[in-house]
Amino acid sequence: MKKINIGILGLGTVGGGTYDILRDNRDVIRRRTGVDYEVTRILEINQKAIEAHGVDPSVVTQNVDDILSAGDIDIVVESLGGIEPSSSWMLKALENGKNVVTPNKAAVAANYGKLKKAAEDSGVQIRIEACVGGGIPALTAITEALAGNVFTEVMGILNGTTNYILTKMGDEGLPYDEVLKDAQAKGFAEADPTADVEGIDVANKLSILMALAFDQYVPPQDIPTVGITGVTMDDIAAARDRGCKIKLIAKAAVAGDGGLSCEIRPMEIPLDHPLAGVNNEFNAIYITGNAVDEVMFYGKGAGALPTGSAIVGDIISIMRTEALK
Amino acid sequence: MKKINIGILGLGTVGGGTYDILRDNRDVIRRRTGVDYEVTRILEINQKAIEAHGVDPSVVTQNVDDILSAGDIDIVVESLGGIEPSSSWMLKALENGKNVVTPNKAAVAANYGKLKKAAEDSGVQIRIEACVGGGIPALTAITEALAGNVFTEVMGILNGTTNYILTKMGDEGLPYDEVLKDAQAKGFAEADPTADVEGIDVANKLSILMALAFDQYVPPQDIPTVGITGVTMDDIAAARDRGCKIKLIAKAAVAGDGGLSCEIRPMEIPLDHPLAGVNNEFNAIYITGNAVDEVMFYGKGAGALPTGSAIVGDIISIMRTEALK
Repeated sequence: MKKINIGILGLGTVGGGTYDILRDNRDVIRRRTGVDYEVTRILEINQKAIEAHGVDPSVVTQNVDDILSAGDIDIVVESLGGIEPSSSWMLKALENGKNVVTPNKAAVAANYGKLKKAAEDSGVQIRIEACVGGGIPALTAITEALAGNVFTEVMGILNGTTNYILTKMGDEGLPYDEVLKDAQAKGFAEADPTADVEGIDVANKLSILMALAFDQYVPPQDIPTVGITGVTMDDIAAARDRGCKIKLIAKAAVAGDGGLSCEIRPMEIPLDHPLAGVNNEFNAIYITGNAVDEVMFYGKGAGALPTGSAIVGDIISIMRTEALK
Repeated sequence: MKKINIGILGLGTVGGGTYDILRDNRDVIRRRTGVDYEVTRILEINQKAIEAHGVDPSVVTQNVDDILSAGDIDIVVESLGGIEPSSSWMLKALENGKNVVTPNKAAVAANYGKLKKAAEDSGVQIRIEACVGGGIPALTAITEALAGNVFTEVMGILNGTTNYILTKMGDEGLPYDEVLKDAQAKGFAEADPTADVEGIDVANKLSILMALAFDQYVPPQDIPTVGITGVTMDDIAAARDRGCKIKLIAKAAVAGDGGLSCEIRPMEIPLDHPLAGVNNEFNAIYITGNAVDEVMFYGKGAGALPTGSAIVGDIISIMRTEALK
């Protein structure tokens, strides 16, 4: 049985979830892939995280080069977050012939071209399913099962925090400020919610979706973006009167002349549109292709295990590819 | 550039759709895969179909062995339908070292184990994405991107004809017989609708879903199945009073003791459940896994191009695997 060694950079929420799935679902993953694997090294300084996940201390390192430059690591999971040093570390891992899996949308949106090229030059893969929509396997669908399509439009509800806030404003009739406080208390919103409520997180995700669906790179900061801080109860009532819900929608479409348009803003979605049924912390990606027509993927856009599911799916894909080599 | 030769058995609705996508999206498929391909042989006697798709007559044969036993065919698309001779022909193709792609749910539900084993013995693939949910890439998600999960439940609206009829009964207040006639006139239901309205088509699909998600084979005829012919306007009104819609639901779940339960019958779905928003001819597959939690896939469950999209996705996956060999 082929054996794959995995190194994990960061045992935070997502890295920890990934570790737990690899441990708990080991039998089924081995049977399905015919490949054995082991997490042989983890970069982490937080002793509580190491203990919480029951990690053997001999696996833990505080030196990133023990993973990036190790001869015996096949796959590096980069689950640290932030553009740097994550991007440089992923590049180094790829240059050293290691496959990379990451949920780091900010780093990928900023440096996808460079990362992709480094992977190609080394004959390895960088896989990024967890960057958009958490556990929802939409990116893999775009690049694999739906790859026979010319895509004409992608639309999505790509941020759970803002979708939770808009859902509560609509369902419970509470204004933005009050719902935000409640969401923060429940852990659905960060203490500093700027990246979520201003659409910055969504812009990273739409940039990645466009790169994959349309093969065109638009930097996140170039996407016209309006967050949800200006949505009032009057807006929500007016939308309801028109048979609509307000959702923070990321949208990109190819025009007849081949030009690409994109925007992120609160939009009115008719109640009978499938995206109108995507509520609370759920996410969805709605894609139109010239063969498949309209298809939608729905699920949890965040969280340790859903996001870990996407990372483990990418690891499995790499294991199967390595087994063919 | 690696070159793959494709043979197609049957240029009917789905075979024809597949042929059209392979021709029309050729540039984008070549660029995405780095592999070239050609449809080098088609089994078909219907001259009108051959002309309608603009097929070069030199590609057409009436002898199936020109495809199954040809030394120069890498992938066989079996788009004839029916359990036999399709199953025997797929087995022969696999035994001869050819990859097989099929939308033939009846043949796959009857013979999945045999087909899978023949593929493994020959070191090739049988891919069946188009068997369930038309263009919706749910099977690939289960076996690939979500393969890190232990699945606990699958639920689906797996038949467009019955979903169209139930939607119209609910929306327009027309009884079953009238809606069926209208659906037949519009081409959404067959002249003999038995396989659809009695749930036989759905049973084939649920059998396949269970084989992939739970690695357990339940023959379609062993699945407790109730179709939609007994659904009355009173049932629909009573469901509405309870805040529900009636949908023909296929459901399978793993019990705590590891036992598998399954059934197909009209069920009441609460209006706030994502499956309640799946209307008309659309299909959806709703899956629960121990890592990803709940995820849903939505799209067109039938039709030449959506089903062709799934077949071409499978062809692309095989081309990428062959390119690694």
